[in-house]
Amino acid sequence: MKSSTDPVQNLAKLIACPSVTPAEGGALSALEAMLSPLGFSVERPVFSEEGTPDVENLYARRSGNGLHLMFAGHTDVVPVGDETAWSYPPFSAAIHNGEMYGRGAVDMKGGIACFAAAVGRYIDKNRDLKGSISFLITGDEEGPSINGSRKLLEWAKAKGESWDAAIVGEPTNPGKLGDMIKIGRRGSLSGTIVVHGIQGHVAYPHLADSPLPGMLMLLESLLYPALDNGTKDFQASNLEVTTIDVGNPALNVIPGKATATFNIRYNDTWSDETLMAEIHNRLDKAAGRRKLRPGKRAPVNYELIWRDRPSHVFLTHDNKLIETLTSSIESVTGERPQLSTSGGTSDARFIKDYCPVVEFGLVGKTMHMVDERVAIADLETLTQIYERFIADFFA
Amino acid sequence: MKSSTDPVQNLAKLIACPSVTPAEGGALSALEAMLSPLGFSVERPVFSEEGTPDVENLYARRSGNGLHLMFAGHTDVVPVGDETAWSYPPFSAAIHNGEMYGRGAVDMKGGIACFAAAVGRYIDKNRDLKGSISFLITGDEEGPSINGSRKLLEWAKAKGESWDAAIVGEPTNPGKLGDMIKIGRRGSLSGTIVVHGIQGHVAYPHLADSPLPGMLMLLESLLYPALDNGTKDFQASNLEVTTIDVGNPALNVIPGKATATFNIRYNDTWSDETLMAEIHNRLDKAAGRRKLRPGKRAPVNYELIWRDRPSHVFLTHDNKLIETLTSSIESVTGERPQLSTSGGTSDARFIKDYCPVVEFGLVGKTMHMVDERVAIADLETLTQIYERFIADFFA
Repeated sequence: MKSSTDPVQNLAKLIACPSVTPAEGGALSALEAMLSPLGFSVERPVFSEEGTPDVENLYARRSGNGLHLMFAGHTDVVPVGDETAWSYPPFSAAIHNGEMYGRGAVDMKGGIACFAAAVGRYIDKNRDLKGSISFLITGDEEGPSINGSRKLLEWAKAKGESWDAAIVGEPTNPGKLGDMIKIGRRGSLSGTIVVHGIQGHVAYPHLADSPLPGMLMLLESLLYPALDNGTKDFQASNLEVTTIDVGNPALNVIPGKATATFNIRYNDTWSDETLMAEIHNRLDKAAGRRKLRPGKRAPVNYELIWRDRPSHVFLTHDNKLIETLTSSIESVTGERPQLSTSGGTSDARFIKDYCPVVEFGLVGKTMHMVDERVAIADLETLTQIYERFIADFFA
Repeated sequence: MKSSTDPVQNLAKLIACPSVTPAEGGALSALEAMLSPLGFSVERPVFSEEGTPDVENLYARRSGNGLHLMFAGHTDVVPVGDETAWSYPPFSAAIHNGEMYGRGAVDMKGGIACFAAAVGRYIDKNRDLKGSISFLITGDEEGPSINGSRKLLEWAKAKGESWDAAIVGEPTNPGKLGDMIKIGRRGSLSGTIVVHGIQGHVAYPHLADSPLPGMLMLLESLLYPALDNGTKDFQASNLEVTTIDVGNPALNVIPGKATATFNIRYNDTWSDETLMAEIHNRLDKAAGRRKLRPGKRAPVNYELIWRDRPSHVFLTHDNKLIETLTSSIESVTGERPQLSTSGGTSDARFIKDYCPVVEFGLVGKTMHMVDERVAIADLETLTQIYERFIADFFA
């Protein structure tokens, strides 16, 4: 049982498993081997959906009377990229100059390794733990996220599970360990605009109707004015046009169709419904302003297609949970972390519908990059922070 | 010799030759067979350029003392498109309901057939023609126009040829025969804009620099305000954005580069030099207006690449030539044609550097389309107009 209290050994075992989404790669089995000796009962449900690969997930619970704390994360990793560019093979867990190299080192096999070690240490000291701890670990966080945490949470709830709080072990620190915790996340919403015109020859523009001046008007209306200036807890919402495409190679042809796609990262000024309404409103207004030719108005003929499911914005209001995590970090590092809602989405967007959730893990600098790596010292520090957090949470 | 005076027979022979650019297809040989009996000496120079197919051309001259009139055109045709959609095979010259079907019927084997017939008729009546007539016929008008009229004119000039006037037999009439002659053409200028940014993740826009807001500013500056409102002889210059492309499939990625291409059809307000300067000026001004973020200015990082050679704008100022053609048309049809500078470019853009040039031919409605066809009656009418024009020109 002792071995699971060492985050470095834990992480080496997890990195050795080539669990690029959607492959399990042995990573969930390795985690099960760490948790079972600690008294966890482990289940590994596989979820399916037509058109997506089956994905294996893991839910492990050590039960006791009292509060129920969830640790959430994922063992799947992004592809290694150019393997020849790595200083050490990406699944070798090589240690060099005080750092362990490997895909998933910080995102986020490292977080799992530390939390498992922290639980091991805490249970060593507190055999009669009054509360419950569970690991909710998916193999589909870096992929389409369809057969992952969302379904795992529904599946657990259907079995009667409920939680008092959750901590997600994603790498939240931009610079050094203890910099930042995440107490919410912006929402994400994407859409594709298609503008229809009439193809023709550039020498006879009156016989054609280019979609491009209209497309420019629509996109300008999305970009300006800015959606908001930010709120107390969130940075300003931001809209990016991610692509515009026509694909017309002929210099003498006016194209008949143009498409453009945008993504919005939005704050708590908006819900996805109010934001969708704002976008529709801006586009309709802009479309109506078009003059086809001097004296002749014709609204831009466009369609708006929403892409994927929106990720809802959320903010954790459980100040006791936030303070427990903050003071755990301060007691180990000597500094209070910044409370942030910045960055991309995480599976916390699903968990927040079940219980209050905060996020804290390793330093994210090398995530998704060649030579992803973690300082050995950080693994020990994070394990101490997690152990202190567990102790304070159940105190 | 008599047979060449029938434009219908002439056209049937030309249509039967599958002379899709760059193939000669027998069309120049068929034309040579019509012209040689009329006293023309025929040469068929082949021009080459690396990266383009060799193209055969024809120059035929019947010499006499006096003025020298050039008839210019092309025997190459555009591809047939969907051959199964044709009512009659595209190289069969089938006659149905008073119309002859075939690729090139109006663009512009029909014009050549009529001019050859007109010359035949005129020479029958005027054996001692005082002037010279030449046919300058290319096989590369519908293609890249590199081994065609431009080189044929240079080649003829190098041999000591010079001309007093030229008539191009392109289909100039939008609705019915005699509607319109062309006395000039707008110029054409194309460019591609590349905007460089910095790729990144949509959740971290401060680490990226999207090229798209800058691209929108640049394109707006080209579209508005309009270049001009037209001149006495020309319609307004017109700029079309022909394509915008990014090719970014990822909803969560800010792209690093965007390209857009535009084409301008411009009137005699501009030369290609002044127009290029105007475009550079608009783009530089717009680029300098960009704010990177509130309080931080950074000009849009763009390149402008001019495409192809510009086609220069031109206007024929030879009022006697224009009046000779106009009155020939009026004497046959009873109506004066409109003098126009509209539509696309033609090889007249090359000829205008050697002598005054006007354009008049058949009705263009079906050109480049499936079931391209010409009214048999129009072939006879155009032959009469051309014969009258020849007579008045040499009178």
